[in-house]
Amino acid sequence: MSTTPATIPGYTYGQADTARSPLTLEELRQLEQAVLWTPEDEQYLRQAGDVLADQIEAILDLWYGFVAAHPHLLRYFTDAQGQPIAEYLAAVRRRFGQWILDTCRRPRDQDWLNYQYEIGLRHHRTKKNQTDHVTNSATPVVPLRYLVAFIAPITITLRDFLARKGHSPAEVDKMYHAWFKAVTLQVALWCQPYVKDGDY
Amino acid sequence: MSTTPATIPGYTYGQADTARSPLTLEELRQLEQAVLWTPEDEQYLRQAGDVLADQIEAILDLWYGFVAAHPHLLRYFTDAQGQPIAEYLAAVRRRFGQWILDTCRRPRDQDWLNYQYEIGLRHHRTKKNQTDHVTNSATPVVPLRYLVAFIAPITITLRDFLARKGHSPAEVDKMYHAWFKAVTLQVALWCQPYVKDGDY
Ligand code: HEM
Ligand code: HEM
Repeated sequence: MSTTPATIPGYTYGQADTARSPLTLEELRQLEQAVLWTPEDEQYLRQAGDVLADQIEAILDLWYGFVAAHPHLLRYFTDAQGQPIAEYLAAVRRRFGQWILDTCRRPRDQDWLNYQYEIGLRHHRTKKNQTDHVTNSATPVVPLRYLVAFIAPITITLRDFLARKGHSPAEVDKMYHAWFKAVTLQVALWCQPYVKDGDY
Repeated sequence: MSTTPATIPGYTYGQADTARSPLTLEELRQLEQAVLWTPEDEQYLRQAGDVLADQIEAILDLWYGFVAAHPHLLRYFTDAQGQPIAEYLAAVRRRFGQWILDTCRRPRDQDWLNYQYEIGLRHHRTKKNQTDHVTNSATPVVPLRYLVAFIAPITITLRDFLARKGHSPAEVDKMYHAWFKAVTLQVALWCQPYVKDGDY
């Protein structure tokens, strides 16, 4: 990542115009327990951040390649004529790269919780397409079933990258599982705008 | 598992009174692609079934112990006075045991898809508490955020059991990842009743 967060268009982490999560920090802690979160994960997630920091572009290449290879996934980045919107893909890509580092390095406080909610809104029809001013999108919403399903590829494909800096298999495994838990936790948070009243 | 499916109360897999999934098999196949499903996973999931078959009670002990250790999770099995409902826990436990084997062994056809929808309804307020005739439940619904979060513990805790039958680390890893994908796929399906119209 050559850019600092402040220069990434649409990246509003910690800013006043970011949505405020309807969940409390107490509820977040309970959700952390549900994904088996431990203090050790904290430490290994930070280590993962160091391991991944200079591999962000390669990871994004892989993830974008995966999406691009499946028309039923690429759809969410196409225009009403079915063409991929290059500016949209590129704008999201920069925030996605920053997200990898944020996942590893940011403390899970109120700002963090709020930005999780914001990311949920941006996948949901509440805010999809707005941040990057996409006016001709084919799709008003990323379907929830894909949001949940992506926990698998976003976790599994990371392992090879975690193994590339000479850590022992045991250490790679701990970083990998801290990452798995962190992604699952976040996707569970992102689902909120999709869910019927009282069912979240 | 000493009982055959037909004798498990409330287990309606493949029966006419089971709900019919609103999703098509074509949509299921697309969701499988999203979790990186491959034919190799099929094979390793079956192998996992063989490895787990005589460990079901030990797995359930672990999972129930995890839920029981957290009041904010146990709640969903308690009555309005806050007491765990023993009959409810026991009845669900038998179907949960069967589910482990079904996950590994059942072909993912229309009956399978329908029962996924049924399990979603049973966690959701549409059908929670009905199958076991629980009339004094503290909770009308298992919140969606916990449903998604549980992908982590239901996956991670299985690995030790997969490693107990002398398979190589590489084989255990393949069984483990097939299981991870299968759980993620199912939870993505179970979410449907929770989601607002058009957002699923
Ligand atoms: C584990 C699941 C997923 C992760 C971790 C993830 C990650 C991200 C991140 C970090 C962003 C940028 C957030 C920001 O604006 O700061 C984003 C935006 C986006 N993602 Fe995802 N995503 C996931 C699932 C999906 C799926 C399944 C699709 C559809 C194939 C998708 C399509 C999009 C689109 C279209 C945007 C831009 C939304 C907008 O208009 O603002 N994402 N995603
Ligand atoms: C990966 C996530 C989960 C899996 C794999 C899972 C698995 C299952 C299975 C297999 C059943 C029985 C289905 C049947 O009737 O045939 C069941 C029922 C049930 N589960 Fe879960 N579950 C998950 C998440 C949760 C969570 C987070 C809770 C709450 C702490 C929960 C509470 C319950 C309850 C209360 C029932 C009985 C529902 C009824 O009244 O019929 N489950 N679950």
